[in-house]
Amino acid sequence: MELDEITISRAILTAQMKTLIDHMELDAAVVGAGPSGLTCAALLAEKGIKVGIIEKKLSIGGGMWGGGMMFPKIVVQEEARRLLDRFHIRSTPYREGYYVAASVEAVSKLAAAACDAGAEFFNLTSVEDVMIKADGRVSGLVINWTAVEMGKLHVDPLVIGCRFTVDATGHDAVVARLVARKGGDLQVKGEGFMWADRAESRILEHTREVFPGLIVTGMAANAVAGESRMGPVFGGMLLSGEHAAELVISRMKE
Amino acid sequence: MELDEITISRAILTAQMKTLIDHMELDAAVVGAGPSGLTCAALLAEKGIKVGIIEKKLSIGGGMWGGGMMFPKIVVQEEARRLLDRFHIRSTPYREGYYVAASVEAVSKLAAAACDAGAEFFNLTSVEDVMIKADGRVSGLVINWTAVEMGKLHVDPLVIGCRFTVDATGHDAVVARLVARKGGDLQVKGEGFMWADRAESRILEHTREVFPGLIVTGMAANAVAGESRMGPVFGGMLLSGEHAAELVISRMKE
Amino acid sequence: MELDEITISRAILTAQMKTLIDHMELDAAVVGAGPSGLTCAALLAEKGIKVGIIEKKLSIGGGMWGGGMMFPKIVVQEEARRLLDRFHIRSTPYREGYYVAASVEAVSKLAAAACDAGAEFFNLTSVEDVMIKADGRVSGLVINWTAVEMGKLHVDPLVIGCRFTVDATGHDAVVARLVARKGGDLQVKGEGFMWADRAESRILEHTREVFPGLIVTGMAANAVAGESRMGPVFGGMLLSGEHAAELVISRMKE
Amino acid sequence: MELDEITISRAILTAQMKTLIDHMELDAAVVGAGPSGLTCAALLAEKGIKVGIIEKKLSIGGGMWGGGMMFPKIVVQEEARRLLDRFHIRSTPYREGYYVAASVEAVSKLAAAACDAGAEFFNLTSVEDVMIKADGRVSGLVINWTAVEMGKLHVDPLVIGCRFTVDATGHDAVVARLVARKGGDLQVKGEGFMWADRAESRILEHTREVFPGLIVTGMAANAVAGESRMGPVFGGMLLSGEHAAELVISRMKE
Amino acid sequence: MELDEITISRAILTAQMKTLIDHMELDAAVVGAGPSGLTCAALLAEKGIKVGIIEKKLSIGGGMWGGGMMFPKIVVQEEARRLLDRFHIRSTPYREGYYVAASVEAVSKLAAAACDAGAEFFNLTSVEDVMIKADGRVSGLVINWTAVEMGKLHVDPLVIGCRFTVDATGHDAVVARLVARKGGDLQVKGEGFMWADRAESRILEHTREVFPGLIVTGMAANAVAGESRMGPVFGGMLLSGEHAAELVISRMKE
Amino acid sequence: MELDEITISRAILTAQMKTLIDHMELDAAVVGAGPSGLTCAALLAEKGIKVGIIEKKLSIGGGMWGGGMMFPKIVVQEEARRLLDRFHIRSTPYREGYYVAASVEAVSKLAAAACDAGAEFFNLTSVEDVMIKADGRVSGLVINWTAVEMGKLHVDPLVIGCRFTVDATGHDAVVARLVARKGGDLQVKGEGFMWADRAESRILEHTREVFPGLIVTGMAANAVAGESRMGPVFGGMLLSGEHAAELVISRMKE
Amino acid sequence: MELDEITISRAILTAQMKTLIDHMELDAAVVGAGPSGLTCAALLAEKGIKVGIIEKKLSIGGGMWGGGMMFPKIVVQEEARRLLDRFHIRSTPYREGYYVAASVEAVSKLAAAACDAGAEFFNLTSVEDVMIKADGRVSGLVINWTAVEMGKLHVDPLVIGCRFTVDATGHDAVVARLVARKGGDLQVKGEGFMWADRAESRILEHTREVFPGLIVTGMAANAVAGESRMGPVFGGMLLSGEHAAELVISRMKE
Amino acid sequence: MELDEITISRAILTAQMKTLIDHMELDAAVVGAGPSGLTCAALLAEKGIKVGIIEKKLSIGGGMWGGGMMFPKIVVQEEARRLLDRFHIRSTPYREGYYVAASVEAVSKLAAAACDAGAEFFNLTSVEDVMIKADGRVSGLVINWTAVEMGKLHVDPLVIGCRFTVDATGHDAVVARLVARKGGDLQVKGEGFMWADRAESRILEHTREVFPGLIVTGMAANAVAGESRMGPVFGGMLLSGEHAAELVISRMKE
Repeated sequence: MELDEITISRAILTAQMKTLIDHMELDAAVVGAGPSGLTCAALLAEKGIKVGIIEKKLSIGGGMWGGGMMFPKIVVQEEARRLLDRFHIRSTPYREGYYVAASVEAVSKLAAAACDAGAEFFNLTSVEDVMIKADGRVSGLVINWTAVEMGKLHVDPLVIGCRFTVDATGHDAVVARLVARKGGDLQVKGEGFMWADRAESRILEHTREVFPGLIVTGMAANAVAGESRMGPVFGGMLLSGEHAAELVISRMKE
Repeated sequence: MELDEITISRAILTAQMKTLIDHMELDAAVVGAGPSGLTCAALLAEKGIKVGIIEKKLSIGGGMWGGGMMFPKIVVQEEARRLLDRFHIRSTPYREGYYVAASVEAVSKLAAAACDAGAEFFNLTSVEDVMIKADGRVSGLVINWTAVEMGKLHVDPLVIGCRFTVDATGHDAVVARLVARKGGDLQVKGEGFMWADRAESRILEHTREVFPGLIVTGMAANAVAGESRMGPVFGGMLLSGEHAAELVISRMKE
Repeated sequence: MELDEITISRAILTAQMKTLIDHMELDAAVVGAGPSGLTCAALLAEKGIKVGIIEKKLSIGGGMWGGGMMFPKIVVQEEARRLLDRFHIRSTPYREGYYVAASVEAVSKLAAAACDAGAEFFNLTSVEDVMIKADGRVSGLVINWTAVEMGKLHVDPLVIGCRFTVDATGHDAVVARLVARKGGDLQVKGEGFMWADRAESRILEHTREVFPGLIVTGMAANAVAGESRMGPVFGGMLLSGEHAAELVISRMKE
Repeated sequence: MELDEITISRAILTAQMKTLIDHMELDAAVVGAGPSGLTCAALLAEKGIKVGIIEKKLSIGGGMWGGGMMFPKIVVQEEARRLLDRFHIRSTPYREGYYVAASVEAVSKLAAAACDAGAEFFNLTSVEDVMIKADGRVSGLVINWTAVEMGKLHVDPLVIGCRFTVDATGHDAVVARLVARKGGDLQVKGEGFMWADRAESRILEHTREVFPGLIVTGMAANAVAGESRMGPVFGGMLLSGEHAAELVISRMKE
Repeated sequence: MELDEITISRAILTAQMKTLIDHMELDAAVVGAGPSGLTCAALLAEKGIKVGIIEKKLSIGGGMWGGGMMFPKIVVQEEARRLLDRFHIRSTPYREGYYVAASVEAVSKLAAAACDAGAEFFNLTSVEDVMIKADGRVSGLVINWTAVEMGKLHVDPLVIGCRFTVDATGHDAVVARLVARKGGDLQVKGEGFMWADRAESRILEHTREVFPGLIVTGMAANAVAGESRMGPVFGGMLLSGEHAAELVISRMKE
Repeated sequence: MELDEITISRAILTAQMKTLIDHMELDAAVVGAGPSGLTCAALLAEKGIKVGIIEKKLSIGGGMWGGGMMFPKIVVQEEARRLLDRFHIRSTPYREGYYVAASVEAVSKLAAAACDAGAEFFNLTSVEDVMIKADGRVSGLVINWTAVEMGKLHVDPLVIGCRFTVDATGHDAVVARLVARKGGDLQVKGEGFMWADRAESRILEHTREVFPGLIVTGMAANAVAGESRMGPVFGGMLLSGEHAAELVISRMKE
Repeated sequence: MELDEITISRAILTAQMKTLIDHMELDAAVVGAGPSGLTCAALLAEKGIKVGIIEKKLSIGGGMWGGGMMFPKIVVQEEARRLLDRFHIRSTPYREGYYVAASVEAVSKLAAAACDAGAEFFNLTSVEDVMIKADGRVSGLVINWTAVEMGKLHVDPLVIGCRFTVDATGHDAVVARLVARKGGDLQVKGEGFMWADRAESRILEHTREVFPGLIVTGMAANAVAGESRMGPVFGGMLLSGEHAAELVISRMKE
Repeated sequence: MELDEITISRAILTAQMKTLIDHMELDAAVVGAGPSGLTCAALLAEKGIKVGIIEKKLSIGGGMWGGGMMFPKIVVQEEARRLLDRFHIRSTPYREGYYVAASVEAVSKLAAAACDAGAEFFNLTSVEDVMIKADGRVSGLVINWTAVEMGKLHVDPLVIGCRFTVDATGHDAVVARLVARKGGDLQVKGEGFMWADRAESRILEHTREVFPGLIVTGMAANAVAGESRMGPVFGGMLLSGEHAAELVISRMKE
């Protein structure tokens, strides 16, 4: 059989267009494909929930690839080790309670798990705004190609609907800030000073629905709450992602 | 137990320094973590060969994340489907002989396989030059942080040794061009016009040792040979990565 | 009826995806939506030929909007006046044989005519390469979003097929140079000095099939031929676009 | 007759200088050549009103060329369909009440209509400031070449007079913000969250004279009022442009 | 009398348009308003010759403002001192044969002299190309706003006619290089090493008609001839400008 | 005599160093070499006052070179015509009370006059800060090379003393803003809307000592006062410069 | 012996890793390697205190290299001369009480002294944040490669512990501002106007512990206090560095 | 005594101007203040030779600050250790024949030695060209502020005379390339592949007078000769600097 370029192009267009049309209305939109977003999306999708992960960059993984100061290793504390195991990420004990893993492996395995569970990725896609109608809930996301912003092009966005939005965009807390800036009843306090122990121990309580329909997770959760900054440790982010998934699941049952 | 930031920092530094010192002399250095490089590295490492993957960007995956024109799907032809299966990348038939997979899944699964097999990743690392001594072989790589170049800093590189180097840097064929530009007996002809069928059918013969110690794979192989350009199809790249691994293995036995 | 954002987004996606799939194989691909490209496309489409216009910018019109030195007027000589009339572009005589029109009107009316005739526009789309197979003809275009290049993103292109390609990209002669640079039997000589009278009188003979399947028109035609540069006058470009259309039509009958 | 470059250059200079001198005092200055500005200008000029359209970019059309997320289609709702018909823009029903048109055709036909009606375009021209004298009305615009700003050149502006100014600059609401920033009794609240239905149903009441002599239209109207954001739908913008024209006409009769 | 902005704007437009139309055909076009260009233009205009000075920057003066290494003084040797005196530029002897003047005064007085003599300045104007017709002479200049290039705008140029062109653009020798690059029988050799004495003593012989209709002066003359580089001394440039004027005058009498 | 490069370099260094040392303490420092600064400096120096003009750019002249919208003509009203005459700037009446001059001539003649009167120019020099000691007066300027800022170099400034400082930096009112930002009892209100007649008629009263030792002139005077914006007319700026000179002279007599 | 590149690379990695691990907990972290930081670090290390100097640039020395306005000389007053002598920096009297030294020598000798005393340099390292735990003290610094910021890379930092932090970052007062911005009880008032005598005489009292664990020195001390700006004189900075060292020493004894 | 800013400024200007005037004619100009340039300059000045070091950056030290890959350590082999000792740079043996030193200490001590020996530093100064007169020797350097190039300013250079020039600009071999590019009888071959042992053993023979009056040292010597690239080891550079000094000394005796 001779390979045909036009057929290949058609295959790509047709397959992705089907994916797009199928995902214009989501149960949960996870914004940001870093450690907490990937964890949350994987666990949600495992439950059969329709999940889309919206990532502004070309690649997923967020700040995890570079480890600490470009030394590509991450550290996870005891409590979160079961999540490493669940996603088949190998780790080595450094000292009691501290486990070291390779950052490339951590990203790859989390993303692979999200794929296997059925989450769909929309990379190179930015969230410009949110949709809030009469019920006062975040019920959709106004999205655009990231390349449009990079090229400073004047191009209008499209809109996807979602029952729940999970803001997993790190300390920028992009979605929460959008809501706050346009007058939503929500304050983004910004991270405090570095204090890993406190930050890690409080993150689960900060992982919550901060505005109707909008749940924050990972560093975004702490940033909204004005909590201390997390150290170069990822356990809290994984646990927070897990907690965000639980919240969405329980809210969807209501 | 209270989490301690200094301990976490020490854990990262110590672990990565051990990795670095352990990998200053490699059996095979794979330059470029796109589809052919990841395939090659995974298959080499599976055989117990000491492999390091050197990637200039923060994230691995190369041009695969964006699919075709930012529609994140890839197409693979019949012959390469067994490699998708081997790496647990799910695919859907589009038409006889054409299989569609999600690009995020493809990157993640390939990288996860390389990690599991024992390949080590050195991301954010650029190859500035090669080491060629009296035996006329490429026997080492002159590397630096990519951030040094991005920040236009005047900082000297370090050197790692390697018995074999695999240039998997895409159509730039970075290592091959370095060798050619400095007078090595090697010509990089550059890709020809788009002609997927021809490009895919010839890639295995172009995947070869083009200079003592230097094997080219994927788009780099075709670029060196002046072969036609591959279409938006990834089968040949996976097969070429597999073939490069076989070449290194057989050469190491000599 | 209540307006629904998701429905609107689906409408846009569905409509354009249909357009894309329908136009993956064209009779004629016109590259560049300046005066000669628009004229050519309008006249081709009028004859029922399936025409796609590929324009790298967001807006069409090329260098016509700015008139001469940002004074938005264009001048057309006697011979080309009938084309102004045909496209309902109003003009005023300046002196015998010289007619002045408004540049915004000229662009709008040409584009409107192309639309009405059935030509389809693909703006924000760049041509990265051409497809040339065993028959040695330009039989397809390798395209990508212009935004990919602007954002310096590493994203692969797609391919569309076309029986004939019209290079209407101005003095850059983008497609012709791509062919020449990769070794096609074609030389792009570049424009000569300014000499309007000569340039205008020779343009029709330079409007020709310079490589199997590739016709050049407008400033691209003169640039390939090494002809004198045209002055700030647009008659020759319109006439050249008309001639390119005639060539395609007659070649399609063969 | 031999074509003469100097004559051509003189023709352009002379013609445009006449246009400039003739339009130093306008009945209505429409700032921004997007959908609402073009609609408003076309309808005003049809009534014999002296209209100048000031557009900062080289090309007119604003954000319309790129459709939604670079898919060049626009959607218009039932109420605005008669304006599509009026300007000969073809549309296809997607679902009851939603009509899809091609964005290139929409821009071209609107601009062609404005030209035919007698509106004059001043592209590549930015509004730096407004003229407000003793009567407290916006009675002129302080304009400069956009290229002056792009080149960061220190060059002074000129001034054109206008009885009415229509701010059709989209959500930037450029003129309104200029007035507000310098202390005029006017507040620009900025767009709210996305809520297409509400935004479209309120736009006509927001299309009004917000400061003596200054009428806002299209997205600028909603941005001044702090109204919800419009979705990727253009009906409201066309209707708002029509309403702005009606307001100017009725105010000019006073 | 009340000042009226519209009248002021009209006055500027009308006056400059008259100047432009009057100067579309020049006896001599001097390109570059540095020391040799200003000297040449002043002396030509004094003889009643119609001179236009085309300067790409906003301000005239070229490299003279900054003196040597930003110390705003210039040095002139004995032979050229009479030209300083002629233009009322005060100087102080440093040592026998070396006179020091202030650079701001030197520029201002040269420009004032050119104005008084009747030369017309076209600043912010770049030369993009030359016009060469059947007689093989440089008979016109293809000009554009410098801002067009700075803003990377796609805008076409206009053309002015000139019997003689003086290239006074410094070591870039802009016009000469344009002619050479497009195939004119002219070679631009580029400046040699620094050797002030030789460069100054040879400049008058290099100030000559290097191509029909094109005279080079100042550093452009030495750059075309491959002559040694001039030191931070301006005498030769003034004398060369004077000589260029004499050449134009004598050629015009032919 | 043979020209010697080292002697030339020594001549420049020696001459400028003498100028610098001689001008480390000024009677009046005029900051900004636009129309009002040049007028003020020329008139001050004529009276034997030691004046230094500090200009951040390489060339002097400010916004005057470009006329209005790059049409290099300026307009001056009746009242200021005597200043044109005084500086030998030729003008042509456009209509009663409006005189047009060429902008290049205007800059050159003003600068030539300032030189002849004995003012010293320090171009390429920026004012970073002011010196204010126990007496609460601006008694010196903290200056640096403009190139230091352009190159983002970390280099400390030097200080020159001055009895009076004239801020002639246009609507930026650089010195006044420095004083205000650091807590001096001075408010810079910023220009109002365009209203030439009012702006021109009030400028003389705004030209005053706004802080001990600091006089504002030209657009800086109106900007500090929150006055209307001046149109493209230069009379008020010349008159304001004259008035600033008178103020300094009378204050120095105290 | 044959030189081996891999051994050299291992030597560098091993040596620096040992240095890093040894210095993860410091007695005193001096941020900024300008004159006050170097003085402070040298004097602390002489006492056997474990000191790390964190410098964001590649080279140390701060603003000292460029002297005043790129004239590489510095001036020191009488009181500080003994510190010049102590560090073997030669100086020449200019006038009574003013001593001139070469800036390159001053930087080199200060740095050499700090090295000899045992201080360790961490250049190319930025401080992103501080660590403040339950005791409310600055007890650590959150650091990253400066190249990470320059390359706009998303890479997480590491943390080093320190009993005392000395902010010697000049008028930016980087650490103090970080503390203030995140809500620490500390106000950074910013430098006042230039008044060298006052600034120099007050600097010692401003050199103090402004927040638990954080001492400010040099220009940072004056910037925090809102003190007058120092002239181009370095005595106060050296004396302030000395005083900061004394403060740390006395506080460590507590 | 009260500190006076004007006196300080005068002290800096006067002192540096004296230095400049005194050094307009040098015995030896060393271009580049990296390891070989500093070594050469220190050893030359020790012999009473008048040496100026011209460094384009603000700080001296070249590529030495960053060690290898930003790990600030350098390695020196056995042969060069005596030079470390001579300049009081402490080192630690890593393995037999390999010594490790801190890079900040190495730079500081070399620079301090050059200062103590009497060499004068001209930092922020670029070499634009060379002076070559009738005798065909490099007899001077055409210099300018580096900031002029950074700010893209059009400012002329000055010239300093020198009997010998030492090109110590690293692999760019700036001066040698200037000579070669302008036609001097000299070829710069560029570095070969990395091969530390060979590069180090050949560097002394490549350290030679490559053109009358021009000696190359350090990496510049190897780059001119086309020699292998040196590893991250500094011994050869120090030895080469020593050898260059010996060559200049012996040549000066001729």
